[in-house]
Amino acid sequence: MHVSESNWTDLEKKIARTAFGEAYKREVAALLKQVREEAGAIAEVEDLWRLHNFLSAKRHEMEGKYDYSYSALIFIFAGLLKEGWLNMSDLEGLAQDKLAKVAALARM
Amino acid sequence: MHVSESNWTDLEKKIARTAFGEAYKREVAALLKQVREEAGAIAEVEDLWRLHNFLSAKRHEMEGKYDYSYSALIFIFAGLLKEGWLNMSDLEGLAQDKLAKVAALARM
Repeated sequence: MHVSESNWTDLEKKIARTAFGEAYKREVAALLKQVREEAGAIAEVEDLWRLHNFLSAKRHEMEGKYDYSYSALIFIFAGLLKEGWLNMSDLEGLAQDKLAKVAALARM
Repeated sequence: MHVSESNWTDLEKKIARTAFGEAYKREVAALLKQVREEAGAIAEVEDLWRLHNFLSAKRHEMEGKYDYSYSALIFIFAGLLKEGWLNMSDLEGLAQDKLAKVAALARM
């Protein structure tokens, strides 16, 4: 499934960047909404440390997940698709073999 | 300034425990209020990671500060007094020499 940078045309790179950015924006927006709601309901110090634990884990996860590299992009897109931050329509314009790989991985 | 457990009478221990608990409750209440307000104003992912950094530091600070031990209690009370989480009136009933030490340290 390894697809190196040379396998991406300029147009595909542009589409990939945009899709990646969109997924990130969507996930961040959902996260901010969730934190605002949870923080508003904080009543005890345990709730606060629970929020802290959640943010620690989320930050680590986001930093790992949104590390843009062409060799990992197929896997990244499959993951984002599975989690709902990306739709196949965001990837329109990529070569058919890439789309097929992403879709197959997302179903796993 | 070292005052070991044997230097505290039962009544003083009770007063100390209550004062310690009150300071903790006050600081926690202020912290919860601050986090609820700051979290409500979160607009970007940077704000979120800033909140995470703040909570990491605060948690570390609180765990260190509210570690109840008789040998450190004079210092703990002086610190809490200085930060405003404790008043001298909370310590009423402790021996004069302890009160004097706490007050002197809090002025440093």
